Amino acid sequence: MREINASIPFDKRLWRQDLAGSKAHVAMLGATGIVGPQDAATISAGLDTVAAHYEANGVAEDMVLEDIHMQSEARLAEAIGPVAGRLHTARSRNDQVATDFRLWVRDAIDQVDVALKGFQLALLARAEEHADSVMPGFTHLQSAQPVTLGHHLMAYFEMTARDRSRFADARARGNRSPLGSAALAGTGFPIDREMTAAALGFDGPTRNSLDAVSDRDFAIEYLTAAAQVALHLSRLAEEFILWASQPFGFVSLSDQWSTGSSIMPQKRNPDAAELVRGHSGRIIGCLTALMVTMKGLPLAYSKDMQDDKPPVFEAHDLLGLSIAAMTGMVESATFRTPRMRAAAEAGFSTATDLADWLVREGGIPFREAHHITGRAVKLAEERGIALDQLPLEDLTAIDARIDDRVYGVLSVDASVASRTSFGGTAPARVRAAIAAAREELA
Amino acid sequence: MREINASIPFDKRLWRQDLAGSKAHVAMLGATGIVGPQDAATISAGLDTVAAHYEANGVAEDMVLEDIHMQSEARLAEAIGPVAGRLHTARSRNDQVATDFRLWVRDAIDQVDVALKGFQLALLARAEEHADSVMPGFTHLQSAQPVTLGHHLMAYFEMTARDRSRFADARARGNRSPLGSAALAGTGFPIDREMTAAALGFDGPTRNSLDAVSDRDFAIEYLTAAAQVALHLSRLAEEFILWASQPFGFVSLSDQWSTGSSIMPQKRNPDAAELVRGHSGRIIGCLTALMVTMKGLPLAYSKDMQDDKPPVFEAHDLLGLSIAAMTGMVESATFRTPRMRAAAEAGFSTATDLADWLVREGGIPFREAHHITGRAVKLAEERGIALDQLPLEDLTAIDARIDDRVYGVLSVDASVASRTSFGGTAPARVRAAIAAAREELA
Amino acid sequence: MREINASIPFDKRLWRQDLAGSKAHVAMLGATGIVGPQDAATISAGLDTVAAHYEANGVAEDMVLEDIHMQSEARLAEAIGPVAGRLHTARSRNDQVATDFRLWVRDAIDQVDVALKGFQLALLARAEEHADSVMPGFTHLQSAQPVTLGHHLMAYFEMTARDRSRFADARARGNRSPLGSAALAGTGFPIDREMTAAALGFDGPTRNSLDAVSDRDFAIEYLTAAAQVALHLSRLAEEFILWASQPFGFVSLSDQWSTGSSIMPQKRNPDAAELVRGHSGRIIGCLTALMVTMKGLPLAYSKDMQDDKPPVFEAHDLLGLSIAAMTGMVESATFRTPRMRAAAEAGFSTATDLADWLVREGGIPFREAHHITGRAVKLAEERGIALDQLPLEDLTAIDARIDDRVYGVLSVDASVASRTSFGGTAPARVRAAIAAAREELA
Amino acid sequence: MREINASIPFDKRLWRQDLAGSKAHVAMLGATGIVGPQDAATISAGLDTVAAHYEANGVAEDMVLEDIHMQSEARLAEAIGPVAGRLHTARSRNDQVATDFRLWVRDAIDQVDVALKGFQLALLARAEEHADSVMPGFTHLQSAQPVTLGHHLMAYFEMTARDRSRFADARARGNRSPLGSAALAGTGFPIDREMTAAALGFDGPTRNSLDAVSDRDFAIEYLTAAAQVALHLSRLAEEFILWASQPFGFVSLSDQWSTGSSIMPQKRNPDAAELVRGHSGRIIGCLTALMVTMKGLPLAYSKDMQDDKPPVFEAHDLLGLSIAAMTGMVESATFRTPRMRAAAEAGFSTATDLADWLVREGGIPFREAHHITGRAVKLAEERGIALDQLPLEDLTAIDARIDDRVYGVLSVDASVASRTSFGGTAPARVRAAIAAAREELA
Repeated sequence: MREINASIPFDKRLWRQDLAGSKAHVAMLGATGIVGPQDAATISAGLDTVAAHYEANGVAEDMVLEDIHMQSEARLAEAIGPVAGRLHTARSRNDQVATDFRLWVRDAIDQVDVALKGFQLALLARAEEHADSVMPGFTHLQSAQPVTLGHHLMAYFEMTARDRSRFADARARGNRSPLGSAALAGTGFPIDREMTAAALGFDGPTRNSLDAVSDRDFAIEYLTAAAQVALHLSRLAEEFILWASQPFGFVSLSDQWSTGSSIMPQKRNPDAAELVRGHSGRIIGCLTALMVTMKGLPLAYSKDMQDDKPPVFEAHDLLGLSIAAMTGMVESATFRTPRMRAAAEAGFSTATDLADWLVREGGIPFREAHHITGRAVKLAEERGIALDQLPLEDLTAIDARIDDRVYGVLSVDASVASRTSFGGTAPARVRAAIAAAREELA
Repeated sequence: MREINASIPFDKRLWRQDLAGSKAHVAMLGATGIVGPQDAATISAGLDTVAAHYEANGVAEDMVLEDIHMQSEARLAEAIGPVAGRLHTARSRNDQVATDFRLWVRDAIDQVDVALKGFQLALLARAEEHADSVMPGFTHLQSAQPVTLGHHLMAYFEMTARDRSRFADARARGNRSPLGSAALAGTGFPIDREMTAAALGFDGPTRNSLDAVSDRDFAIEYLTAAAQVALHLSRLAEEFILWASQPFGFVSLSDQWSTGSSIMPQKRNPDAAELVRGHSGRIIGCLTALMVTMKGLPLAYSKDMQDDKPPVFEAHDLLGLSIAAMTGMVESATFRTPRMRAAAEAGFSTATDLADWLVREGGIPFREAHHITGRAVKLAEERGIALDQLPLEDLTAIDARIDDRVYGVLSVDASVASRTSFGGTAPARVRAAIAAAREELA
Repeated sequence: MREINASIPFDKRLWRQDLAGSKAHVAMLGATGIVGPQDAATISAGLDTVAAHYEANGVAEDMVLEDIHMQSEARLAEAIGPVAGRLHTARSRNDQVATDFRLWVRDAIDQVDVALKGFQLALLARAEEHADSVMPGFTHLQSAQPVTLGHHLMAYFEMTARDRSRFADARARGNRSPLGSAALAGTGFPIDREMTAAALGFDGPTRNSLDAVSDRDFAIEYLTAAAQVALHLSRLAEEFILWASQPFGFVSLSDQWSTGSSIMPQKRNPDAAELVRGHSGRIIGCLTALMVTMKGLPLAYSKDMQDDKPPVFEAHDLLGLSIAAMTGMVESATFRTPRMRAAAEAGFSTATDLADWLVREGGIPFREAHHITGRAVKLAEERGIALDQLPLEDLTAIDARIDDRVYGVLSVDASVASRTSFGGTAPARVRAAIAAAREELA
Repeated sequence: MREINASIPFDKRLWRQDLAGSKAHVAMLGATGIVGPQDAATISAGLDTVAAHYEANGVAEDMVLEDIHMQSEARLAEAIGPVAGRLHTARSRNDQVATDFRLWVRDAIDQVDVALKGFQLALLARAEEHADSVMPGFTHLQSAQPVTLGHHLMAYFEMTARDRSRFADARARGNRSPLGSAALAGTGFPIDREMTAAALGFDGPTRNSLDAVSDRDFAIEYLTAAAQVALHLSRLAEEFILWASQPFGFVSLSDQWSTGSSIMPQKRNPDAAELVRGHSGRIIGCLTALMVTMKGLPLAYSKDMQDDKPPVFEAHDLLGLSIAAMTGMVESATFRTPRMRAAAEAGFSTATDLADWLVREGGIPFREAHHITGRAVKLAEERGIALDQLPLEDLTAIDARIDDRVYGVLSVDASVASRTSFGGTAPARVRAAIAAAREELA
């Protein structure tokens, strides 16, 4: 029983939040006269002693003092004697743990936000460097149209911007103090919930005591936001793994973010990228875990809810490692731009540009322009040459409306330069997007 | 191949969005002169014809015209001839489907929001009616402290408020127009993405074309918000099932939201509540499905992403039914308040009130007060009576500091009335919360 | 990098399997002459030294020696010098870790099987004790027909029998040795894979080296089997929580498997049952995690697969605790059979028996019999009495074909006694099922 | 209510199983004399009439006759009048639906098994054709050692063999008849459950009536087996997508299993492979859905369990499409073996062979051999040549123990030919594995 019941092996991570919550609570008990000023001061000082003890020695995994709350209570009693017992006035384990965990998740969000901003800065720096480095843009992993590497990296900037915005929303929504909800029904003591909420940096108290002790939305929302970051990172990780393969050869990962082989010194295994991709599975697993756990629980507190913390802690650790690893990889990767350009040139990736030119300059309906383009591509393929290497007479033989202005759109550089629509891959657009992004971050 | 490839059996649900997107696109093509004004007008009128056709006949599941886009294109060509081909200028299937699906999800969010508001109103009405109906408040499904039914129902109001806020955030974040991102790289045509965005009610265009066609965050975010609603509903469903059981007997579900048995006319099976609880599983499954599908996909569009729609459509249908069912059940349930009160009185649920009184009036430390209370409860249990039926001499025998003012807190009514802290279960607090909620909704 | 890359914090759990695999490997290297007999003997003795060291001191979490294999290799080199290097002949990290993990999972299955058998024995003992204790059988959590508690507990025996059979199948399927598959392609050394397979208790070697190092089916299959156990336990846990609630009052959990409250000594929180229910969520999360991680990985080994172990280890620990807790709860619970019987009698649960009697004795079609029964139930309900308390004249007034033999089926005891079909709840049947089960286990 | 409650839109797929179950039941009712022989014959004939009707017209989605059982009952009554009512004697909806669904899942397993066998035959045919076609063997998607394409394809044969074995186990475990368990408690009618079980091809009746109507293990087990197939297919799909990309160029997919582009005729999008990869997400979602739905349900039947069928039906359809698509792709793909061979030769993939040769022929410890090999690879890389193009004097300069026999292992052909360990990639081994596999299938 003790083993299944004890949460101290994991909830000891909450010690800072637990003591902060207790300090806010006792200050309020003192201010409202629920506890005498002397006692309140003694308890507050005692809590500082406990904090210093934890800071120095860590939190013991004592299965008898089965959770961080009991452990801190016991330590406090050791430090200041029976007056420690007054701390628990007008409070219950249920609102206490809800408060601690909310504070922890809020701190976790703040950490993730800093890490994601760092990731964005890394993306921006490399995107700027490669604002006009041409690479193949893929659909179905088939070379479709040339894009720039800078544009490609900025796609991840956008995903990350949404990720940060999701965490910000989650933070705002969850930033309400359950403290004072007591066991489930509120309390008859004349407490001041606004005061404790303000002291702990909450935007205010929660509005329904039953909900406050039953609610783990904030934890699930942390996990949903984390899972979406992990999915984005898994996509970039997949690309780095692909790009680092010999057939692609688009990137050389730095020694720091890959592992070598004593036997094949030229080989650099993209271990970190693979682990980031793998971690996305585990983070999704954490989300599933908590959702299943909460399903069908009647109000108010059920002990099942003790299983809220391990998935959140695990996901947070994995996410932190994943963001750091991807940031490091982006910062330190050597992009092999000649290989990228060669691949972009190999796949007739400007076929759409030809078709668009036919529509734009020839006034030819889209579907017909597609057909003409198809014949040109076929011819080039048969000859084993690029589209812009087809002589004009061959092009006019296919369709008389083609003239030599067409060569202005058939090279990969011309193609990317032409895509100047808002959000498009034209280097000027990419540079503008980078500038706007820098401003946004500042 | 045709069978695995065709999406028309499900994406035909997008027809309204698809035609709206096309109308906005052609209006822009006309306004910018990319397509002549005459052609633009013809196409726009043709799209209206197609809409009228779908409205009248539905969308055929034609596996050759494998998706809603090809089907509409074919219908348009039937209606207006080859000029239809110009509609696809400066647009691709990739930005088109992203636009359609975003519009659909936005509409879905709006529908869910209306339904959730209706659910809140139902909760408010019943909460007001039962602002002082006493019932047991449970922790661990053990009777812990008395609360009011109104307070209990208002806990679900709070959850739903968060749910709506999550959907609102998702709506705002996703309300960006991918139209004009073309296949993946933007376009060289002088399009006006602000114009199409505005016409479709978007807050503006997306900022990176690669991201715009690769992104399904908005769909995942719909599913995460839906899953959280489903979890909340699963909890209320669980409670209704419990409460409708003979041993509890707290609620009689209306005939409309339960099923009878020809053989046992008194029995009302809470089928709808069970299905709501079951549906939470399927909605979580939909979320898992899309997350797994998106994991590790390189940019930009991959065909895997065609599997984005079935989970979202399924979840939306199940969620709509679930909210409607729970709203109906809440509105029409008969709460058997005498049974609730009796259960609250049976479980010594005012023990905490006694302890709090000892602290408050006797200045006794919390832990000692608990101990005294434990002895009183034990005595009452041995005698088979309620706490407030213990004679004063027995109470003072346990602790001399107890006097007859204690009876002011020992009844369940006194208990709930005393819990006046913000968010607490005191009827006055509950009524204030209801009033504030009404104002918020208005 | 070191932090994301190192697996030693979790894979140190594999040390026994790792050393066993190495011992089998070196014995084979010696027997086949790939390594000289002297060297083989030295290495084998060295591995024993390493084992003794781990046994005494545990495995250090040294991030430089990043996994259990490197750590053991380093320890071996310390113990016996450079000859240690020969151990790795004709072996690779890839087949080594696959072997270790298969051995670990096989051991885990054996542990689970023992635990599940213990759970079955606990169920059998209590089922025998309560082979004719009447309780309500529920559908939709509505009292439907009386059953015996013994019969109810035996339902869990059946689930557990399937669980054990699933684990046995998983064990048999996974019990193949990957050792000798080397990095991915097999080896040119004249190894004897049958010999190492036999030494490690495998049924034979795996048949394809690429598959052998890429395959984690055995781990997923462990998790699927574990998740199904967890689901079964979650159902029994749910029932114990319900039964322990005051309105049901069907069970008193022992002090050992519940927690009390200082303030309400009569209250016993079913914490362990709640945690078992909660753990089912986490175990399902572990399964999701590994499935997502494996999705879409090309052959052969990818580093993502390092994320195979944490979910399996976590699920195994949670499952072990869950089985132990449910076994303990079943063994020590006090079933409050009078409450159960009273509940069975309260709900007109013999209505089906009346209908069946009308069919059987009166030759009345089923649907008509249902209708007659419905009228009888309604009458009893109006009078507030049980079905078997209705006077005969009232019954014959409803349908003249009823005679006094009907009272032979209207009591809950008569009802359960009558259900003698194979698998039915008649006490004689339940006893026969228990006897058969005991034989099966023996 | 009707909409959330009705299952007919999906459970109509059970009609064949439902009628087969009814026929077996009525035959038993006749044989045991529970129903007269005349009535039994009439009902049986009536069921044939209903079957003919469904076969001709399909099953109507009539929301009033809310499920397939009520619909069939109504049709039967139309056909034969009130005697139809006797069919339901000694049976309940609960055991009926459990029987129907088990039969359906059994049929589904049989279909999957046939499909998987076809997939294996396709793999075998192509593996035989390419038993010695050299390609790079990857780890971390880095070229590691040469293997043969035949060996690679046979890895999927192995996975599929396990998949079939898992389905076979699931079939055997689930092949028990719940019929006769009635609502939950068995029945007092003298039924013969062995007889109905045998008539329906079950191995015997289930042993506990409560379990029989509460159990959905067989459905979950179908889903777990399906999810593992889907994961395997997702891996091959990923490889086909990679191999079809221009940088790899290892495979040309047939027109039938890819889609072209009017504009880029040379481009073949691997849509089917992408959908197979995507479907793995949805199938995992289906598994999650049912697991969550079953979590925490008390015995016996709860309406939540009606949500068991949609995920199983969906997964089965997706799986059938996925297997057919992968089978077709394997059968019709053109493997570009010169590209594969060139890639294998490019990556110094015989470095391990050199190291092994040093160990084997030079008696050099493994770790030292690795070091020497590393120097040789480095030299070859600097020169831009393959390992087997390094002159002997350069090799002996690195280590004097190297002699010209070493060239016997440095080519990719020599490398694969040498890996003759059981399960290794040597063409002779691969051919033997294929022969053994053919025998196994026959």
